Amino acid sequence: MLITAVYPGTFDPITYGHSDIAQRAANMFDHVIFAVADSPHTNKRPVFTLAERVALAQTVFHPYDNIKVKSFSGLLINFAKKNKARIIIRGLRAVSDFEYEFQLAGMNRSLMPDIETVFLPTSPQYTYLSSTLAKEVARLGGNVQPFVHPCVYAALLAKMQANRQ
Amino acid sequence: MLITAVYPGTFDPITYGHSDIAQRAANMFDHVIFAVADSPHTNKRPVFTLAERVALAQTVFHPYDNIKVKSFSGLLINFAKKNKARIIIRGLRAVSDFEYEFQLAGMNRSLMPDIETVFLPTSPQYTYLSSTLAKEVARLGGNVQPFVHPCVYAALLAKMQANRQ
Amino acid sequence: MLITAVYPGTFDPITYGHSDIAQRAANMFDHVIFAVADSPHTNKRPVFTLAERVALAQTVFHPYDNIKVKSFSGLLINFAKKNKARIIIRGLRAVSDFEYEFQLAGMNRSLMPDIETVFLPTSPQYTYLSSTLAKEVARLGGNVQPFVHPCVYAALLAKMQANRQ
Amino acid sequence: MLITAVYPGTFDPITYGHSDIAQRAANMFDHVIFAVADSPHTNKRPVFTLAERVALAQTVFHPYDNIKVKSFSGLLINFAKKNKARIIIRGLRAVSDFEYEFQLAGMNRSLMPDIETVFLPTSPQYTYLSSTLAKEVARLGGNVQPFVHPCVYAALLAKMQANRQ
Amino acid sequence: MLITAVYPGTFDPITYGHSDIAQRAANMFDHVIFAVADSPHTNKRPVFTLAERVALAQTVFHPYDNIKVKSFSGLLINFAKKNKARIIIRGLRAVSDFEYEFQLAGMNRSLMPDIETVFLPTSPQYTYLSSTLAKEVARLGGNVQPFVHPCVYAALLAKMQANRQ
Amino acid sequence: MLITAVYPGTFDPITYGHSDIAQRAANMFDHVIFAVADSPHTNKRPVFTLAERVALAQTVFHPYDNIKVKSFSGLLINFAKKNKARIIIRGLRAVSDFEYEFQLAGMNRSLMPDIETVFLPTSPQYTYLSSTLAKEVARLGGNVQPFVHPCVYAALLAKMQANRQ
Repeated sequence: MLITAVYPGTFDPITYGHSDIAQRAANMFDHVIFAVADSPHTNKRPVFTLAERVALAQTVFHPYDNIKVKSFSGLLINFAKKNKARIIIRGLRAVSDFEYEFQLAGMNRSLMPDIETVFLPTSPQYTYLSSTLAKEVARLGGNVQPFVHPCVYAALLAKMQANRQ
Repeated sequence: MLITAVYPGTFDPITYGHSDIAQRAANMFDHVIFAVADSPHTNKRPVFTLAERVALAQTVFHPYDNIKVKSFSGLLINFAKKNKARIIIRGLRAVSDFEYEFQLAGMNRSLMPDIETVFLPTSPQYTYLSSTLAKEVARLGGNVQPFVHPCVYAALLAKMQANRQ
Repeated sequence: MLITAVYPGTFDPITYGHSDIAQRAANMFDHVIFAVADSPHTNKRPVFTLAERVALAQTVFHPYDNIKVKSFSGLLINFAKKNKARIIIRGLRAVSDFEYEFQLAGMNRSLMPDIETVFLPTSPQYTYLSSTLAKEVARLGGNVQPFVHPCVYAALLAKMQANRQ
Repeated sequence: MLITAVYPGTFDPITYGHSDIAQRAANMFDHVIFAVADSPHTNKRPVFTLAERVALAQTVFHPYDNIKVKSFSGLLINFAKKNKARIIIRGLRAVSDFEYEFQLAGMNRSLMPDIETVFLPTSPQYTYLSSTLAKEVARLGGNVQPFVHPCVYAALLAKMQANRQ
Repeated sequence: MLITAVYPGTFDPITYGHSDIAQRAANMFDHVIFAVADSPHTNKRPVFTLAERVALAQTVFHPYDNIKVKSFSGLLINFAKKNKARIIIRGLRAVSDFEYEFQLAGMNRSLMPDIETVFLPTSPQYTYLSSTLAKEVARLGGNVQPFVHPCVYAALLAKMQANRQ
Repeated sequence: MLITAVYPGTFDPITYGHSDIAQRAANMFDHVIFAVADSPHTNKRPVFTLAERVALAQTVFHPYDNIKVKSFSGLLINFAKKNKARIIIRGLRAVSDFEYEFQLAGMNRSLMPDIETVFLPTSPQYTYLSSTLAKEVARLGGNVQPFVHPCVYAALLAKMQANRQ
């Protein structure tokens, strides 16, 4: 059987934590769709537009044959179904992730019982890393090069400069 | 002794998770007041007005003799005192609930020592359910009928339609 | 309706944390049965015999009219049923308690659906207190008077002395 | 690529919680090895022998073509390697599972970097279920039929009867 | 060696929970800098201005020789470096604090490896206390005198009155 | 002021996780006592004798001037007092550590109010590491060289060989 897995998120912007999860998923499943959500689950407005977030992810995953970047809006399970994906990938960093993720997985399963959510533990070196912290550090003038792909680093700098003007 | 318990919340809107807790509390205590808070504890503005949230809860609890729906503003402990209630009911779904709830219980007890908070575990089938997730699913076009009373379902549909226009 | 609640545990020995929970439950429910388990849930052998644990609890609760001390063996839900109790009381100190307690509550409910488990938060000053820590401190020669009733203190000293010989 | 996943555990005895995880894994990966550990990770001696635990699992998974039951001793990663499995499956019920499982996953990855551990959330109805609780309930005379396969139920009854004599 | 530790936060406003941590840190390290952040880590706009928050803290710590109040903006690690502080103090109340704090500590360490974060457990009586809860209680007309220094109490009352007009 | 801190534990045997914590503490406080407990807090009997555990730690810390290895029995707070130490160091790896450690810290503070417990977060690369896992891996024939000092590695091999005979 050929298995397609969806790895959804806001990815505002994509960090090495996200790409690590996606690449490990790509070693496990035949196809991985890196699914950039139009609307985040939270109230916070994204710093990067949907098109920007998709473009950054496409640059990052360019070398990976079985990772495709797509955007989606609406219910994740509908997107998964349309793409014939039965598996949702989520990274887990910490206990608080765990709880929210379990609620989300339960809700998705309740809406569509043949959808499975699988969790991959974040690699130790990325445990402390999140898009929010990366943006915060960049905003305050810290060096985020160890945390994000060079193209994301450049985009963050440009965005911060634009916001200052 | 006749015991009155208060089950407070924003209930924006009431879900089957909430009504399950209230009905179980009503089997334990003589009177249960389902207390709809005027101002939510968080910054998020409710989707339903206070009057709408109260009306939905009243429809849901119509068949239950010892559950009364009331609204309140100001400190919960003052509302409890005015209603001669010594017990506050809270549902617990997850560890993160647990922590916030414990802080709240501690604060309430510190403000009024003879108030007791008791916690009821959410039924397994509602562990993943929250008003926030229900609204999110409804907003994205998913079916929330398994999660809320028919009157709440209708109200959610109407609200979503109104927001779209 | 007259409500009977059961507060079960190994109580090896009873601490001020346990008596605090029982007394608060006794303000909420008509009758509270302090139910000392013959066999602990864990592999650890109790330091005090069942008879000793019951006797200590009886001394502690002597002034409380609606708290009765009983011992039980076998399934808690059968004991609850025999005593016409529909409510199980559990104290919650910490997140790790929370999880085990939720599993236990779920299992009990699955075995007997009309049994409800309610959780009372441990008072702040007893958050760090457990029978295990109290015994450990006593064994190492520390003063456990702030943690246990005088009769338990005396019993712990006697037990420790006996173990040394 | 054909992917083999290992689902390791002590399985003393296998419950519906375990078989649910294994069957869901079997919908995701080409081959699943249900790997019964000779030595449990904890100090507790198993109630069922290794041969008994393997036989019970084989009965349970008889209808499943791509689930094979095997026993192993020694390091899990060596067993995985020998079976050309790059993926370890673990079920997650609760936060406390989460932590231990993450440590184990980190250790395994440190010992063999190309091994991946993926986590599947336990189905809501099995959240409270564990081999330990099932054995405890059986020992105390409770009905464990809702929690285990009929063959396991019979084996538990027989084992409990044998222990009583 | 003379050690300087920084205790950073938004302190909007300072509570007895914060001053307890700072005073205990001042018994451990030669100098403690109570560092009031210009921009909070979260999106929420502070109720008190930076100048007000600094002034309140200065009143609170007036009697303490080795606690200095300073404000900072930008990256905490740059502020720490400029003040020759190698240690960051954080208070821990609850598991959810723990996780966020660990991520922050990891990020700071990754940005500047010789910075150490040490955690002090909040005293039991302040476990339920936070600036957010104190403001909420004050806003709803509750008495926050047990939670904050008299000067903070007066400032909260004045602020609430100003907001009402 | 000259500050002495105690870092207590069973250290059966000392791992790189422990030595990392001790060395970081030694950069913060004037003197660090690495205090090897005669009796572990748990029921598990140590694999290494007290003398062996002390000797291994002494080899590990030989290059560190302000780290002294001592053994102790009885209450930690009495040991701390005798050594004029007001500070107890504990490493934190995970949420479950956090809870137990907070209870212990609360108990110690209740027994001796001027004792402070400070927590240091374990370095990311040692998050998954514990003495128990290291022994388990060694017992099963895995390579524990990345986790322990060469002298501990040799001792583990010898101990495992002795146990097999």
